[in-house]
Amino acid sequence: MPFVGGPKDKKIIALLTDFGLKDPYVGVIRAIMLDINPNLLLIDFTHEVESQNVKEAAFLLNCYYRDFPKGSIFLAVVDPGVGSKRRAILVKTRDYFFVGPDNGIFSYIFLDEPQHICYELKEKGFFRSQVSSTFHARDIFAPVCAHISCGVKPEEFGPKVNDPIILESLFPKIEQNFIEGELLHIDKFGNLITNIHPKFLDISSNSKLKVFIKGKEIPFVTTYSDVNIGSLLSLWGSSGFLEISVNQGSAIDRLNVRLGERVRVIF
Amino acid sequence: MPFVGGPKDKKIIALLTDFGLKDPYVGVIRAIMLDINPNLLLIDFTHEVESQNVKEAAFLLNCYYRDFPKGSIFLAVVDPGVGSKRRAILVKTRDYFFVGPDNGIFSYIFLDEPQHICYELKEKGFFRSQVSSTFHARDIFAPVCAHISCGVKPEEFGPKVNDPIILESLFPKIEQNFIEGELLHIDKFGNLITNIHPKFLDISSNSKLKVFIKGKEIPFVTTYSDVNIGSLLSLWGSSGFLEISVNQGSAIDRLNVRLGERVRVIF
Amino acid sequence: MPFVGGPKDKKIIALLTDFGLKDPYVGVIRAIMLDINPNLLLIDFTHEVESQNVKEAAFLLNCYYRDFPKGSIFLAVVDPGVGSKRRAILVKTRDYFFVGPDNGIFSYIFLDEPQHICYELKEKGFFRSQVSSTFHARDIFAPVCAHISCGVKPEEFGPKVNDPIILESLFPKIEQNFIEGELLHIDKFGNLITNIHPKFLDISSNSKLKVFIKGKEIPFVTTYSDVNIGSLLSLWGSSGFLEISVNQGSAIDRLNVRLGERVRVIF
Repeated sequence: MPFVGGPKDKKIIALLTDFGLKDPYVGVIRAIMLDINPNLLLIDFTHEVESQNVKEAAFLLNCYYRDFPKGSIFLAVVDPGVGSKRRAILVKTRDYFFVGPDNGIFSYIFLDEPQHICYELKEKGFFRSQVSSTFHARDIFAPVCAHISCGVKPEEFGPKVNDPIILESLFPKIEQNFIEGELLHIDKFGNLITNIHPKFLDISSNSKLKVFIKGKEIPFVTTYSDVNIGSLLSLWGSSGFLEISVNQGSAIDRLNVRLGERVRVIF
Repeated sequence: MPFVGGPKDKKIIALLTDFGLKDPYVGVIRAIMLDINPNLLLIDFTHEVESQNVKEAAFLLNCYYRDFPKGSIFLAVVDPGVGSKRRAILVKTRDYFFVGPDNGIFSYIFLDEPQHICYELKEKGFFRSQVSSTFHARDIFAPVCAHISCGVKPEEFGPKVNDPIILESLFPKIEQNFIEGELLHIDKFGNLITNIHPKFLDISSNSKLKVFIKGKEIPFVTTYSDVNIGSLLSLWGSSGFLEISVNQGSAIDRLNVRLGERVRVIF
Repeated sequence: MPFVGGPKDKKIIALLTDFGLKDPYVGVIRAIMLDINPNLLLIDFTHEVESQNVKEAAFLLNCYYRDFPKGSIFLAVVDPGVGSKRRAILVKTRDYFFVGPDNGIFSYIFLDEPQHICYELKEKGFFRSQVSSTFHARDIFAPVCAHISCGVKPEEFGPKVNDPIILESLFPKIEQNFIEGELLHIDKFGNLITNIHPKFLDISSNSKLKVFIKGKEIPFVTTYSDVNIGSLLSLWGSSGFLEISVNQGSAIDRLNVRLGERVRVIF
């Protein structure tokens, strides 16, 4: 892709929450950040994570953060423990910054990014002057992200953390001749997205994969149009993970399933 | 919070409507404003106010406008009377500008901001050249906001208004030993937010508050984790108003109530 | 409208998709574009088109694109044929650029904009280095839009297309004394918006129009308040097309209809 763009000094902050867009929460955290750094490029990652579903948030973050430019900062706040003793953290990787609660939301990052360093957010000088017990996105996470964008160094926010929380239940169970994963996300088109990734499989055996959900086998193909319109299929989706879909239709309207449903791949 | 940001000459316009995001209405008003001033920082306050519910809009605006930086401009358009004779107004307070219809949407501002001045929008030179009868947000309110951001003075838009509309029904009824308010907003988490604020109470008696909805007493606490997971509670929410909630759950799923339901606090 | 704004060198890209805001798709395409040109002004046109409903997308685009400033670029991706052989195109008109799949989504543009030129997107140098089979908005359309904003000329993207697809079924059927159109969009307020436009009628006969849906006549008026609160009406809406509405209410809650329902106007 030839370079034809403008100056690259503007920083992206991507916002991932379960706040929805019904309430002014997201608007308020945008305002807090723009007040500190009006040159920010703010992008909604999504605000429609299932309420308090840390696992779905971790999964969505993992599926798409690599599509963002190097230097991007991710504010990721799905935070059922707000107001309790859970830590607030900042994770620096080779290319990105991640800011949010220490509740497993960054599990994939810790496993996939070998050069990560994690810090606890302790330096109150970077928080809002009044910190509420229910809205740390506004009072802690948003101003910290904005200060990172202004060049504050990670170590200025607080001490290193060596034992951040990893949610083991996020990952599929690998057996000798099958993998058992689960549905972690249902997208707007009704596609059912699992936590099963080709890295768990011998890729050369792609053609022989058998995909099952609720005991039903779903044909494994390369592209939607490999099956008839209206037929179920499974494929490696644009996020890299196994998806169950319907060609020009909605899989969730065809299968009676919910987040957490088990999916088995035999190879 | 140490100052580390960039230049502050960019202006925030926050957008509060009942337009939703299904239709291009919000995109159009953003385009109109950016065409006049491409340096604007546009923030969605919310577009999910219940259709034509002026009271909910007034309430949400009041709960969150103080979180925005000084100098912010609020476009607030929930406007069941569009096309009728209702006035279009601009309200200047010490720190902010508010633009919208004169239908009570700024009631809280008029009562809480002693230095407010209200103007009627009459100067057609600041409107779009064609004003439709159904879309004043595009044709009047958006260009006026953008022109304010460019430095046009409030008095240039039209004459002062001394009798803007105040919706008395927005405020709780204060009796000798109780307050009766109502639900004005249900947030995305299912929290029930009332119009009852500590300023109506003797704060020192916090520990003795009794909160009732539909005859049922709801424990009044300091933080979510003061009750068991799944239990109902009430507290002063992040917005400052009394909320009825469930610890790690949804109050609206537990109580059969709607906007307008009465809430009583005995002290 | 007096000119009081800032520099006009920033380009607007308006985003029209059926992706919804539940998934990070829109965030990703914003990031891709801002990485190429951080000075972009990105505006959501809408992401709530009915899944894979090319007709609704074509209609909404047509209703509102003229409200955008000259020079705006429209990314319009409702793309049931992604991964198949359908072409990817760029349409240049006198005032705008349109980018998306060649599936009829630009039908109105081809008919209404006499100076349009259409190009096929073939030059892979302007795509992402890896093009997936399911997410051309990210891999083809978004980077192409960003490169247009940087000044790349339309002819650099590929050869001219002389036979882009036009969906004839988008247009009403004109008979000697009536027009039969259909519902193409239901807005957030429950207004029913048709594909019938005054240009198909003898405007001087406005007062004599009779509007029918499901055999029921709907009074044709000039403004909402011409009928009682709660009453059905029809009028030329803010988009220029015939709408069926309820004064201070929702037409979709009153009439049992869906997208595609026939509407007849007798004149």
